[in-house]
Amino acid sequence: MSLTVVGSIALDSVTTPAGRVENALGGSATFFSMASSLFTKVHVVGVVGQDFPQEHVDMLVDRGIDTRDLQVADGETFRWTGSYDGDMSMAETHDTQLNVFAEFDPQISEASRANDFQFLANIHPALQRGVLQQVQHAKLTFMDTMNLWIDTEPEEVKALLKEVMGIVLNDMEAKMLTGEDNLVIAGQKILEMGPEMAVIKKGEHGATVVMDGQVVNLPAYPLHNLVDPTGAGDSFAGGMMGYLASHGEINFDSLKRAVAHGIVVATFTCEAFSLDRLRETTAEHVEERLAEYQNMLAF
Amino acid sequence: MSLTVVGSIALDSVTTPAGRVENALGGSATFFSMASSLFTKVHVVGVVGQDFPQEHVDMLVDRGIDTRDLQVADGETFRWTGSYDGDMSMAETHDTQLNVFAEFDPQISEASRANDFQFLANIHPALQRGVLQQVQHAKLTFMDTMNLWIDTEPEEVKALLKEVMGIVLNDMEAKMLTGEDNLVIAGQKILEMGPEMAVIKKGEHGATVVMDGQVVNLPAYPLHNLVDPTGAGDSFAGGMMGYLASHGEINFDSLKRAVAHGIVVATFTCEAFSLDRLRETTAEHVEERLAEYQNMLAF
Repeated sequence: MSLTVVGSIALDSVTTPAGRVENALGGSATFFSMASSLFTKVHVVGVVGQDFPQEHVDMLVDRGIDTRDLQVADGETFRWTGSYDGDMSMAETHDTQLNVFAEFDPQISEASRANDFQFLANIHPALQRGVLQQVQHAKLTFMDTMNLWIDTEPEEVKALLKEVMGIVLNDMEAKMLTGEDNLVIAGQKILEMGPEMAVIKKGEHGATVVMDGQVVNLPAYPLHNLVDPTGAGDSFAGGMMGYLASHGEINFDSLKRAVAHGIVVATFTCEAFSLDRLRETTAEHVEERLAEYQNMLAF
Repeated sequence: MSLTVVGSIALDSVTTPAGRVENALGGSATFFSMASSLFTKVHVVGVVGQDFPQEHVDMLVDRGIDTRDLQVADGETFRWTGSYDGDMSMAETHDTQLNVFAEFDPQISEASRANDFQFLANIHPALQRGVLQQVQHAKLTFMDTMNLWIDTEPEEVKALLKEVMGIVLNDMEAKMLTGEDNLVIAGQKILEMGPEMAVIKKGEHGATVVMDGQVVNLPAYPLHNLVDPTGAGDSFAGGMMGYLASHGEINFDSLKRAVAHGIVVATFTCEAFSLDRLRETTAEHVEERLAEYQNMLAF
């Protein structure tokens, strides 16, 4: 089944212990769609400025991603500058220029609305709700969010949680949202807020999956070569949703398998800057690494 | 095969969000021996004061633990007072009274020296080396350590690492010892310092196992009911070593299985204060929870 993602498209300047890139392709919708396109047909909804390099659009199209809802607006593309050090679990933001993203009003074509799987990447929760109202028929709706919205728009986030079927968020956000430090309990508290599924991303510690009264911890795939974690969370979500959309079935077991796929897909993103590694990644690479991951967890 | 542990025996006063206990049984050798006795015959080497309640010794003996090397010295038993809050990943120490433990000079009987499996729980690294020199014949020697020794006795710790076969330590200690934030790489750097096996404990995030050029992340068992994490790391090590000693074989696969057993055994410790839950835990309880853990990791 097909999948739509609404989110950001950005040009990132990133410094990590491994090096630096300037104005490299980034953004939640970009990482998400490239990751999910390994599994299924994806429509991307986003906005770029007139400075956005055509080669980036070509890359998406070459991957079979539907870009009909990629708006080109007057002005410059969203730019983010950040750096990582230490265990690279959190970026330090040095500069954010929203540019055309500041006025982003997702225009979703009939074709993109019709998709059975809908992912609301991290944008303002009011925009996410606007999208959600247009895709009420969907088989699965999932949202991401961020600490900023939990802090500044808690009522919007809570209203959204009542309407969405699943949420993916990181450990810090889960603690912030619930006021609970134990992630097992935080995950259960999130379900009490509305969604049927909560997936807590824990970076180098993997993910926690909560659904139907069940809780599972899945570890990270051990990564020797961590170059740049930017986009890892979006790639994780893309791998997870792409897997679910390609299989159609939604239950605890399929969600767990989907999260395992997300964990594996995200490792490719981390092994290079921007989408340099993910764009070269094939479904076969994912299956190969997934088999290693499964082997790691068997004893 | 049989196992010897050398470590501390303490009376702990602990406050957690779940409540408080005073002068409850604790200490690394206590948790370790109770955990490992679920799998194999254990000898405990330690010192207590004349105030040490006989009922605690009786509990060890009832569990089949050999206490011939439990010294009773003039003075009071080692006492520790601490508290946890938040995610309970780290204790805050309020008071430490070493008492008889300050002069601890491990006296290891012939029978305890003869055991094939030897565990040096966290005591001064010079004492650990003294023990290690007495058990050179052992099939497996494993050590624990702590941030204090890495900080104040780095040369002693490094000398010990050249002689011991395996080390278990927590994530913070692994980073401190190697100056490396990526735990996958930190684990490999530890092996370059001498041991053949490194097991990095990550609390609610499970453990990382490094041996023979292989690295495995195993997640924690999801714990809803975290009452008191005191002794979890020692119970983990006890479960791990107990499993290895009971099976005899030492290779990457058996170490991984052993770590899985350690993870599961530690959860029982966390579910109550002191040894209140671990003392009631049977091999059947462990096998039952291990099956759930394996099921969680299968997809």
